[in-house]
Amino acid sequence: MNAISLKGRSVLGLQDFTAGEIERILEVAAQMKKIVLSDNKKRDFLKGKSIVTVFSEASTRTRSSFELAGKYLGADVINITKSGSSMTKGESMRDTLLTVSAMGVDAVIIRDSSEGAALFASKVMSPKVKVPVVINAGDGAHAHPTQALLELFTLKEAGKNIKGMKYVIIGDILHSRVARSDIYGFTKLGAEVHLVGPRTLVPKELESMGVIVDDNLEDALRDADAINILRIQLERAAGGFIPTTREYARLFGINKKRLELCKKDAAIIHPGPMNRGIEIGYDVAYDESSWIQEEVRNGVAVRMALEYLTLTEGKDIEAGH
Amino acid sequence: MNAISLKGRSVLGLQDFTAGEIERILEVAAQMKKIVLSDNKKRDFLKGKSIVTVFSEASTRTRSSFELAGKYLGADVINITKSGSSMTKGESMRDTLLTVSAMGVDAVIIRDSSEGAALFASKVMSPKVKVPVVINAGDGAHAHPTQALLELFTLKEAGKNIKGMKYVIIGDILHSRVARSDIYGFTKLGAEVHLVGPRTLVPKELESMGVIVDDNLEDALRDADAINILRIQLERAAGGFIPTTREYARLFGINKKRLELCKKDAAIIHPGPMNRGIEIGYDVAYDESSWIQEEVRNGVAVRMALEYLTLTEGKDIEAGH
Amino acid sequence: MNAISLKGRSVLGLQDFTAGEIERILEVAAQMKKIVLSDNKKRDFLKGKSIVTVFSEASTRTRSSFELAGKYLGADVINITKSGSSMTKGESMRDTLLTVSAMGVDAVIIRDSSEGAALFASKVMSPKVKVPVVINAGDGAHAHPTQALLELFTLKEAGKNIKGMKYVIIGDILHSRVARSDIYGFTKLGAEVHLVGPRTLVPKELESMGVIVDDNLEDALRDADAINILRIQLERAAGGFIPTTREYARLFGINKKRLELCKKDAAIIHPGPMNRGIEIGYDVAYDESSWIQEEVRNGVAVRMALEYLTLTEGKDIEAGH
Repeated sequence: MNAISLKGRSVLGLQDFTAGEIERILEVAAQMKKIVLSDNKKRDFLKGKSIVTVFSEASTRTRSSFELAGKYLGADVINITKSGSSMTKGESMRDTLLTVSAMGVDAVIIRDSSEGAALFASKVMSPKVKVPVVINAGDGAHAHPTQALLELFTLKEAGKNIKGMKYVIIGDILHSRVARSDIYGFTKLGAEVHLVGPRTLVPKELESMGVIVDDNLEDALRDADAINILRIQLERAAGGFIPTTREYARLFGINKKRLELCKKDAAIIHPGPMNRGIEIGYDVAYDESSWIQEEVRNGVAVRMALEYLTLTEGKDIEAGH
Repeated sequence: MNAISLKGRSVLGLQDFTAGEIERILEVAAQMKKIVLSDNKKRDFLKGKSIVTVFSEASTRTRSSFELAGKYLGADVINITKSGSSMTKGESMRDTLLTVSAMGVDAVIIRDSSEGAALFASKVMSPKVKVPVVINAGDGAHAHPTQALLELFTLKEAGKNIKGMKYVIIGDILHSRVARSDIYGFTKLGAEVHLVGPRTLVPKELESMGVIVDDNLEDALRDADAINILRIQLERAAGGFIPTTREYARLFGINKKRLELCKKDAAIIHPGPMNRGIEIGYDVAYDESSWIQEEVRNGVAVRMALEYLTLTEGKDIEAGH
Repeated sequence: MNAISLKGRSVLGLQDFTAGEIERILEVAAQMKKIVLSDNKKRDFLKGKSIVTVFSEASTRTRSSFELAGKYLGADVINITKSGSSMTKGESMRDTLLTVSAMGVDAVIIRDSSEGAALFASKVMSPKVKVPVVINAGDGAHAHPTQALLELFTLKEAGKNIKGMKYVIIGDILHSRVARSDIYGFTKLGAEVHLVGPRTLVPKELESMGVIVDDNLEDALRDADAINILRIQLERAAGGFIPTTREYARLFGINKKRLELCKKDAAIIHPGPMNRGIEIGYDVAYDESSWIQEEVRNGVAVRMALEYLTLTEGKDIEAGH
């Protein structure tokens, strides 16, 4: 397992990674989690490395967790916020990226509202300068690989065996970068992935990605090992994709009663932030079966693992370190 | 004195602290000030600790001094700015706080326009995750304990004996979180606290807090040991609390002549930023008797002391450290 | 050469520095560049020092490079962004600066839209507090000394001998702080500086600064050793300084064909960000003769050198360090 190296690899989407590579990331994340839980979180594994976050979309949890992850490992981290920039269109994001790469930076963490922004970032660097590692922190509706990784990590921690599990994603699959990354990640590791939601948001064509699109919520939830409740964007009602949020809650909102269809110890996750009372009931959000808070903590561990693995040889972290 | 430990304590308001605890904070702040004045300000007392500032109100001096304080002591500090958020209303600040606590952060420094925001923050954390220390950096008109602490520290440094001193707060007491925290802090340490200002802004009922509300400025200033000139918010005139700022300046503005009523070596403080020519005359703002610039420096020292005491055992810092 | 010390010196404009001092900065920048190019960029030369950036104008590359420069050298860096502040007018920038200096900060990096802002910053600090070093990161149309230094550095790296070289600045000299700093820096080191552009933007009076204002682009480019293509502000057309950007491109845009007038190995620089297709042709921007990306990297090295030289004794960095 140790022979797997990700040094210098950009992380644009999980389709580029083998099952073995994904397992290795999760393995190192488990080692990193011990650091996050410890009293002294400072390490020097990335001392002398520099990481820049370039976020053109607002984000608290993703940006903060990448920043903390880098700092816990001893890297220098600086933040560039491009409010309202559109990467694929203008010179300005291109210039920002060229600038960042020219400054000798080792990794660029990028979030943008345009699909393909991270890929663009990884290609744009001129041959004259060192090309930093690019980590996709969410590009439009395309991909959000670190979110999928932290969900895999959380479910393993919850005692689930990914291989062969029934994993259900509920809600707006069409516009969800989380769902798209989940599908790649969970199918690679052998899960049986089910999708369910309003037909306008869960087209049957998605089955070509190797998943099952269920016709109704009951079928989807029955005997599920884990369910991922996606955030419903309030503007989808205005867009005509769903009638109203109240209607959505009635048809697809997950409450205690509906959970009874799942396996007894089914794990519940949610990418956050939650609309309590809409896609997730108040009785579920704070329940014991909910791993939602733990996901956030695991997000730091997974991002530490990725920064560590892409910027170093990726040796196992010794116990005494 | 060393037996006093504040480890794990949140700092919401000075009413929660004993006189002995406040004295201990000031004592450690004096040790920290030596670091601020030294050529090499970097220490590792908080190495491995992480601090997050969550500010929904604009602030230069308070946020910067908390950030510098943490960095001088070796902590990792990250900033989250929530422009326009209202903590007590929405899910979003709650989610921000849950996120922050889940990321393994050791302390949260919070400023918000809602009274009770810091208390809310200290209660909101789910039992599943480690609860970080919360330090109130100003919540609406309620409290601003670190400002009161730095004022106590500055007056002691100016040679004043807090116990028994005549301490006068001038201006808009009604809307001032500084005044409220001052009243708790200074009365606990035995000062005779006087309040004075337009009756609309200094209601007689405040005397129930153990202070004296003076009828006119002359009575208040007479033989004062120290005076705290509060910033007058320009919108108070619009709100009908004061006639005009010019009128306010004429009736309550502190100039050299009025200072003659105080004791000869009376100390002048101001929470800043000053409206020169309104609540404070130009001849006073830059006078020798003014400790206003020193307050800013002391703000860093006091915040270092608080971060140090709440996140560690709080041992005395050795000379050679 | 080592006898030259810049400790405690503010960097407001290159007119305040001797040729020897400028050479010393470039010499140390060359040492710093080795660090930027190395695998481990963290040094502790500025450990215990604190640097604050105060930027009232948007900036990616300049602010980021100052921040990275400080962090690479081990300093603590915090950022204050004053959106929309005007330093020379209001109390607020003055208060910001007083606050920053009172917090025991060692250096203030300032960018503002008002000419003289950096000078103002260096004067405003009260005598009661330690005065930090001020580094001008661009003040209105006045000066941008670190940009001129990185251009000198880049051209030396490109193998040019500054003394006696024909150096041509093309474009909007009138509104350019880069041009103004360039003129001081390059003439001090003995270059023959030529200016060319629309007469509205390149008044003949500039010759009093010891430069040559050419009548047409051909004369300017002929046998040039290096050319600096300034960014044309799109609003200049609206301001009546130039007819249209298309017209500007036709008359003064630099393309491959026009470059043939220069010496064979002439170096091309541009302060960025480029308007490709206007002042600089697509065929030139990515050409081998372009040092534009390298300028960005050199910007980090030059700013490391300045922070190092103004905050320490400025000893040579040993090879093994």
